[in-house]
Amino acid sequence: MTFEPRSAGIIGLGLIGGSLARELAGRGVRVAGFDANSATLDAACAEGVVGDRLDGSLEGLNGLPVVIVATPVSVTERALATAAAKLGSAALVMDVGSTKRSVVAAAESLGLGDRFVGAHPMAGSHRSGWEASRAGLFVDAPVFLCATRTTRASALECARELWTALGARVETLDAGVHDRTVALTSHLPHAAVAALTLAIADAGMSRRHLGPGGRDALRIAASSPDLWADIMLDNADELLGALSGLEKQLAVFRQAIVSGDRERMRALFAAAREWSDA
Amino acid sequence: MTFEPRSAGIIGLGLIGGSLARELAGRGVRVAGFDANSATLDAACAEGVVGDRLDGSLEGLNGLPVVIVATPVSVTERALATAAAKLGSAALVMDVGSTKRSVVAAAESLGLGDRFVGAHPMAGSHRSGWEASRAGLFVDAPVFLCATRTTRASALECARELWTALGARVETLDAGVHDRTVALTSHLPHAAVAALTLAIADAGMSRRHLGPGGRDALRIAASSPDLWADIMLDNADELLGALSGLEKQLAVFRQAIVSGDRERMRALFAAAREWSDA
Repeated sequence: MTFEPRSAGIIGLGLIGGSLARELAGRGVRVAGFDANSATLDAACAEGVVGDRLDGSLEGLNGLPVVIVATPVSVTERALATAAAKLGSAALVMDVGSTKRSVVAAAESLGLGDRFVGAHPMAGSHRSGWEASRAGLFVDAPVFLCATRTTRASALECARELWTALGARVETLDAGVHDRTVALTSHLPHAAVAALTLAIADAGMSRRHLGPGGRDALRIAASSPDLWADIMLDNADELLGALSGLEKQLAVFRQAIVSGDRERMRALFAAAREWSDA
Repeated sequence: MTFEPRSAGIIGLGLIGGSLARELAGRGVRVAGFDANSATLDAACAEGVVGDRLDGSLEGLNGLPVVIVATPVSVTERALATAAAKLGSAALVMDVGSTKRSVVAAAESLGLGDRFVGAHPMAGSHRSGWEASRAGLFVDAPVFLCATRTTRASALECARELWTALGARVETLDAGVHDRTVALTSHLPHAAVAALTLAIADAGMSRRHLGPGGRDALRIAASSPDLWADIMLDNADELLGALSGLEKQLAVFRQAIVSGDRERMRALFAAAREWSDA
């Protein structure tokens, strides 16, 4: 990468934070790391991924040029507040959560606006935690970057260079546009698939009755309940709008089925396929 | 396989029929084949998979011990009627469609009840046609077998042996139970994912904004519009019941989001994950 920090702090070593730590350590960056789960932190240190072990006070952040908060959305604001007091002269502070308006506002009110960039790598899966982390996770992943009202161009550029170096497809967009976009492309699918799964489960059906298409479709129902409950509530307004769109489409399908309208059914499936193939 | 026919007729050489033809030919069975698409039939003959080329009259079926109708659901009844007149002494007649009540009733009214077994291999994908067919498609696939009121035990046993030999996990069940089961585990997911896709598309979002979870979830939106329009309408009554279950679950999610009920949200996702992991 053009932006080559010699060290970086990473708070939270789950799927995203752990994978970032592996990538950076693999590039010779000295990683100072913390995780609320001490077994995770032990493992990250034992594997040589984390070079400097931090404790919950985050004392060791001072002097690090980059600090990345990779905690669940619900605790990011608190972690950011703890970090803010210890940051020193870090040029770039990022989070990696799935919602961006709330964290951008938090960074601004903590006085971190000029060096904060909200990042959202769309690289998650139904697996989570340090055990699921791996180098290569961000290759070809969309990564959205959201600036605050006062983010310095140099901080944004550093963030872009860092993610690009990891193979991601970086796109910069407004936090509000981001939250609306992912409400549709990520949060709604997670909610809809969970609801679909519960409808199937409630009717007494078993997973062994799924074909390969059904297994693919329902895979994200195995995602972390804690992570996703937090994400849904943090983006509730946009998610409700997206949910209305789905309810409207389901009503259109229902009407086509009730009326036995074969041409309408075909046209609906054809329109869905057209978007998929685009 | 214990049931070792020396020859078999296959009407329709798409994903399922083509894969069956490849499997049987690979086991030394002489395959007489027909497809309404002459280019498909040319390819199947040129590859040596189909040994005896049939025309639309299905004249060559006489003398074959097994006849499999692997056409789209909407034309299976007609193909079965054409075949019925030419079948000779075939011991086993099967279809492979995604709905079973209508085809079982059709086989009975055509006088084929004693040797007919409705089969539904859950091995489909968003790809279809001869080009997508392959040996190995049925390995580990659930295959449902549905008898008529008069199916001979020997015919059912032949069907079971044939699919088991191809690696499938065979389950025998009543056609009505089958149609209710797949309304939930296959047809509802296809309808819901198509509706979800259209909700995302209508809001102006692009496929490149999907992460890996979203791409998995939406994959079956690329399925054949013609095949699926027919399936949905042939199983409309059961599908509408399944759809009501989904609508009910979505209302529960909506309520949890509106009320900001974090514990409820977590419990919903946890229940969905529990089913997924079972």
